[in-house]
Amino acid sequence: MPQQVLFRESLGDVLRAERMRQGMTLRQLSTEARVSLGYISEIERGQKEASSELLGALCEALDMPLSDVLREVSDQIALEEAARELHVVSVEGLSSSDSGPEVVASAA
Amino acid sequence: MPQQVLFRESLGDVLRAERMRQGMTLRQLSTEARVSLGYISEIERGQKEASSELLGALCEALDMPLSDVLREVSDQIALEEAARELHVVSVEGLSSSDSGPEVVASAA
Repeated sequence: MPQQVLFRESLGDVLRAERMRQGMTLRQLSTEARVSLGYISEIERGQKEASSELLGALCEALDMPLSDVLREVSDQIALEEAARELHVVSVEGLSSSDSGPEVVASAA
Repeated sequence: MPQQVLFRESLGDVLRAERMRQGMTLRQLSTEARVSLGYISEIERGQKEASSELLGALCEALDMPLSDVLREVSDQIALEEAARELHVVSVEGLSSSDSGPEVVASAA
């Protein structure tokens, strides 16, 4: 079975992308949000869960509504879910074919 | 300033609403997701943060894609953000009026 899609990983991607879009450094965001730089960095890399309060502080520092962040995360995860679904269908549909593994690899 | 919208509170609302929509008890969900009943109950009441792995297990037990859960949470938070925005506008617009507090209370 394909690996589970993790909320914190997509959240980290979205938060990092938004920070970089604004040309903000980790240090600037850290100062603005009053959250340690190392902690923000771990959240952006999907290694730590962000508490709801911390997530709120980061959204405020990025001047981005929490609902927008979550919608982007939802969209990103929907794409990953579709890709995993495709992967499963490929594995099932091609399980008796010699070329299965290569096709699966490119679809996943 | 109005109180911050918290992710875990909306998430709890959405998860509980979906469980009840399916007519599932806390005990059934607990068994299905292999998560303690008390922990799920705290998550549904917005009192505990759910780790990404736990959130994934709950979504799977509810047979609901994580992206759908997050989209509902995003929609719910967007409404709360709009209501809080309205509250701020009301406070600013009516700050010199005697009837301010009552109007603010009904808008919030």
